[in-house]
Amino acid sequence: MSGRQRGLFLTFEGVEGAGKTSNLQHAKSLIEATGKDVVISREPGGTEVGERIREVLLNPDLPAMHSDTELLLMFAARAEHYQHKILPALEAGQWVLCDRFTDASFAYQGGGRQIDQSRIRELEAWVLGDFRVDQTYLFDLPVEIGLSRAKARSAADRIEQEQVEFFERIRLCYLQRAEHEPDRFTVVDASQSLDNVQAQLSRAVETLLESVG
Amino acid sequence: MSGRQRGLFLTFEGVEGAGKTSNLQHAKSLIEATGKDVVISREPGGTEVGERIREVLLNPDLPAMHSDTELLLMFAARAEHYQHKILPALEAGQWVLCDRFTDASFAYQGGGRQIDQSRIRELEAWVLGDFRVDQTYLFDLPVEIGLSRAKARSAADRIEQEQVEFFERIRLCYLQRAEHEPDRFTVVDASQSLDNVQAQLSRAVETLLESVG
Ligand SMILES: Nc1ncnc2c1ncn2[C@@H]1O[C@H](COP(=O)(O)OP(=O)(O)OP(=O)(O)O)[C@@H](O)[C@H]1O
Ligand SMILES: Nc1ncnc2c1ncn2[C@@H]1O[C@H](COP(=O)(O)OP(=O)(O)OP(=O)(O)O)[C@@H](O)[C@H]1O
Ligand SMILES: [Mg+2]
Ligand SMILES: [Mg+2]
Repeated sequence: MSGRQRGLFLTFEGVEGAGKTSNLQHAKSLIEATGKDVVISREPGGTEVGERIREVLLNPDLPAMHSDTELLLMFAARAEHYQHKILPALEAGQWVLCDRFTDASFAYQGGGRQIDQSRIRELEAWVLGDFRVDQTYLFDLPVEIGLSRAKARSAADRIEQEQVEFFERIRLCYLQRAEHEPDRFTVVDASQSLDNVQAQLSRAVETLLESVG
Repeated sequence: MSGRQRGLFLTFEGVEGAGKTSNLQHAKSLIEATGKDVVISREPGGTEVGERIREVLLNPDLPAMHSDTELLLMFAARAEHYQHKILPALEAGQWVLCDRFTDASFAYQGGGRQIDQSRIRELEAWVLGDFRVDQTYLFDLPVEIGLSRAKARSAADRIEQEQVEFFERIRLCYLQRAEHEPDRFTVVDASQSLDNVQAQLSRAVETLLESVG
């Protein structure tokens, strides 16, 4: 396969502390072992402008912003990321592995903040047109486990300060999206040990690598 | 008239250095003299979150952002401003005078950056629904005069660093919008002396004040 064939776009989703960041590196190694060029990124952020937007979004010292503002900021960072980083990389034949993407907007601002899914779809179409994610790995676990892992790691940002029910709605929304698009999603049981989770992810990534040859 | 009647929303538009900020205060005094409560604000910005977004938008040290990113950031700041400041003030009976608003997005990101007007209208509807500006004062002048006034005042921000043709397209777009909505717009000849410009504005504001009684 030549480097000029379009790369694939894979996303890692789940509530705080589910293991997205820990497992991205593992997936990267598996894919690179087949000779592909892999770029890792994250949302919100991923570009210099996007990281500035991320600072505004997650700053716990700012007053509570309106949910519309939060969603527009997420999509502003995403527009920059998509236009200036993801699309050019895919077109150059690189694979892009991204820590959160549009599913997170549906889960957090839709499920969590209860913005209408239809209004989120409008912004998705405005920013991304017909572009879609190739494969999504959903790290699913009871939210208390994820939150306690995240708490052990670092101080809570503005979004992590929400109540448990907020994260329960997010988890449910993720699971509904996975059920609705079974071909795109792989649900990983992230409550297991890191070794076990990596083994689940390995199987899914190997199946994908076989399917693209 | 009781203070509980909804206030009016007035906006001040025009290219850099046209005199928006200088003349806002003058309009405020005229309206306050009739016993009304007046709030002054500006875009992008107007709220604490919005001012942080403004810093990202105007920072000349950041790499050039995609025009979609810029427009989404403008509307993110506007959503915050509208939901948390403009709407509550109007509902409390205050008049709100704003240095730039949605017309500036059509002029700068539409006319200037040449984003489709229809895509801007989509975001306008997403953020503002049916809400519209009551009166707009367009400070119109040859762009070179405005730019030289602005240059004499302060260093250029990221947007002010654009070429003259960029601002010519903005001026034209503003004038087309004014022609299309003559009841909402008053075009002020801003190339005149400050005294003369203030006199033009006074006449327009007095006519408005008479019409609302
Ligand atoms: N399967 C696991 N079992 C136990 N601990 C884990 C497991 N996976 C990750 N951790 C630990 O839990 C913490 C959170 O993991 P990680 O940062 O990968 O989650 P995340 O999904 O990226 O979280 P966030 O959404 O907050 O970025 C880290 O300290 C990590 O070492
Ligand atoms: N009619 C006028 N004649 C001469 N100078 C003027 C006039 N109006 C304003 N100025 C001066 O021009 C400069 C720009 O005016 P002002 O800041 O009000 O413009 P503005 O439209 O708010 O610009 P910006 O878009 O850059 O904020 C200021 O230094 C101001 O004192
Ligand atoms: Mg992480
Ligand atoms: Mg000004």
